[in-house]
Amino acid sequence: MDVDLTARTPLTSRERVRRAFASEPVDHPPVWFMRQAGRYLPEYRAVRARVSFEELCRNPELSCEVTLQPLDRFPLDVAIVFSDILTVPEAMGLTVVFDTGHGPELSPVVRTPEDIRRLIHPDVADALRVVPETLRLFKAARPKTPIFGFAGAPWTLFCYMVEGRGGKDWLNAKRLLWTEPVLASELLGRIADTVGDYLQLQIDAGAEAVQMFDTWAGVLSSEDYRRFALPAVQRAWSRVKGATSPGGAPRMYFMRDSSATLPVLHETGADAFALDWAVDMARARVTLGSFPVQGNLDPLALFAPEAVIREKVRAIIAAAGPRGHIFNLGHGVVPETPISGVAAMVDEVRRTRFQGA
Amino acid sequence: MDVDLTARTPLTSRERVRRAFASEPVDHPPVWFMRQAGRYLPEYRAVRARVSFEELCRNPELSCEVTLQPLDRFPLDVAIVFSDILTVPEAMGLTVVFDTGHGPELSPVVRTPEDIRRLIHPDVADALRVVPETLRLFKAARPKTPIFGFAGAPWTLFCYMVEGRGGKDWLNAKRLLWTEPVLASELLGRIADTVGDYLQLQIDAGAEAVQMFDTWAGVLSSEDYRRFALPAVQRAWSRVKGATSPGGAPRMYFMRDSSATLPVLHETGADAFALDWAVDMARARVTLGSFPVQGNLDPLALFAPEAVIREKVRAIIAAAGPRGHIFNLGHGVVPETPISGVAAMVDEVRRTRFQGA
Repeated sequence: MDVDLTARTPLTSRERVRRAFASEPVDHPPVWFMRQAGRYLPEYRAVRARVSFEELCRNPELSCEVTLQPLDRFPLDVAIVFSDILTVPEAMGLTVVFDTGHGPELSPVVRTPEDIRRLIHPDVADALRVVPETLRLFKAARPKTPIFGFAGAPWTLFCYMVEGRGGKDWLNAKRLLWTEPVLASELLGRIADTVGDYLQLQIDAGAEAVQMFDTWAGVLSSEDYRRFALPAVQRAWSRVKGATSPGGAPRMYFMRDSSATLPVLHETGADAFALDWAVDMARARVTLGSFPVQGNLDPLALFAPEAVIREKVRAIIAAAGPRGHIFNLGHGVVPETPISGVAAMVDEVRRTRFQGA
Repeated sequence: MDVDLTARTPLTSRERVRRAFASEPVDHPPVWFMRQAGRYLPEYRAVRARVSFEELCRNPELSCEVTLQPLDRFPLDVAIVFSDILTVPEAMGLTVVFDTGHGPELSPVVRTPEDIRRLIHPDVADALRVVPETLRLFKAARPKTPIFGFAGAPWTLFCYMVEGRGGKDWLNAKRLLWTEPVLASELLGRIADTVGDYLQLQIDAGAEAVQMFDTWAGVLSSEDYRRFALPAVQRAWSRVKGATSPGGAPRMYFMRDSSATLPVLHETGADAFALDWAVDMARARVTLGSFPVQGNLDPLALFAPEAVIREKVRAIIAAAGPRGHIFNLGHGVVPETPISGVAAMVDEVRRTRFQGA
């Protein structure tokens, strides 16, 4: 399709996103950001004043409402469905308490062959039906805006399931890898199957791309990442129809602290990569070759003066180059973030005008 | 000097360390580890039952006693002088309370031009005399074992001085970089001068190498690292006589989460690099070229079964190659670490026998 980009005919968000994933010319990079439906928004906090996080996650109408909130405030190109990565461990049979005041708690913890045997291999269409329902509601309400789905990556969910709570070092999770490597790989594989099925379910319900969040993969040595976390990502993606398959969609992989593993990321089987903010964007583009990338502004940069935010946005866009880049933060927006900082970031991305390429 | 390494004549620790820094052949890599004098040792906890952390840091005899403790237990090649990186902010005029039960507290915080003006440029030989005194006591007590000195890196100390306490995201420190870049660079420069003088003081007192710890540099984007943290490291090292200077010693730089910045580390001015455990050792050797490296076992791997520890030690030594490598952990040992795990690590390093190279 030929569009004269220099004439400044704006592309639709859907076309802009499609082109970015295909590394075709765009007018400016598509823009959305992780946790864009979240606590930094007063309208989100207003919903949470009425219902708990659990209730919100279990209610498609409310989930759709908060998914829409950032789109009504900022000219974003993409919606990200509201949910939480811990709905997958819940579907596998664990009890998850989200609102403890000190992070989520999961029980019982999974550390023995018996614990693994007890896990359910859920029928995701039933056990995880809230998100596909939310996707359908969203698409009816806002048909012109692409929406993405997501899930936690196997190693990251493994961390929570083994520890039973959020952690920093994930000692028990690592210890299980080292003391019971066969058992650990089995558990990772079981999680991967559910994650894969769940992401495909989201594509079937209309998600136009899906992102897997490997928030805690950066705590592993590169050797342990390759031995344990990477094969589980491959296994999950093997159950998902990707960018080039009929009925598929681009599969994106986000790993926090990914700089050490950039050279092996192509082995994950993803179609595109979301980069954390420590990654040097220009160098990542060289390492990742033709893969589209997403990222990677430091979320705390949204607390900077507006001129600094705009300068940082321009620097990332320049480093990423005009093709195959979706603008995003390098991690989720933090709750205290000023709305004005978010607005400046989105506006600066949309002001970009690539020369007709 | 010609030593027939295949004859298994053991080198002295001092000669082994000298050769490692010179990338000359050794029988096995020298071995020590970060926080080797620390809470994982019952004999250290016994000292701390008698005196506070502050008292310990201010007393050269006691500091020497705990510096010696790990050497009496494990066949290590190097001692690391016992101290804390926050003695430098203290010497610059801040009050530091170490034993709060929830991390150190510094006051007053440094955030304005007036705050910076109030800082002292200390005469380090007076204000920071405990560590050189400890070094001299150690060298008298244990003349055959090399001892290293250390200091926090400017950005890492800046984080504590701006926040007033330990953090995770270091929002105020980053915000100062972005809102007041000139002021922030001035503060970083003031800290760098003191750090540099302090490290040279340690070399003058007999430290056979010095290490600068940039624990929090990995929270910066690569752009901010290059703009703010890196010039401050250069400035500090410019005041320290390095490996090739008369009266100098090897200058080592440790940065946590360093994978993103490996390609620019040579610009720091250091003579060698200590690598965190997420770094892929084989790839780092290629990126860093001829620079000697130190590292990089995951500290939590010491909780693994002995056979796994030994396997991981061998894998790192194989990836690092036979020259220019000092074995170490990729970060400090954690307090709960089993002594048996430490013993297995040290033993496996010492069992290594490089072919005569």
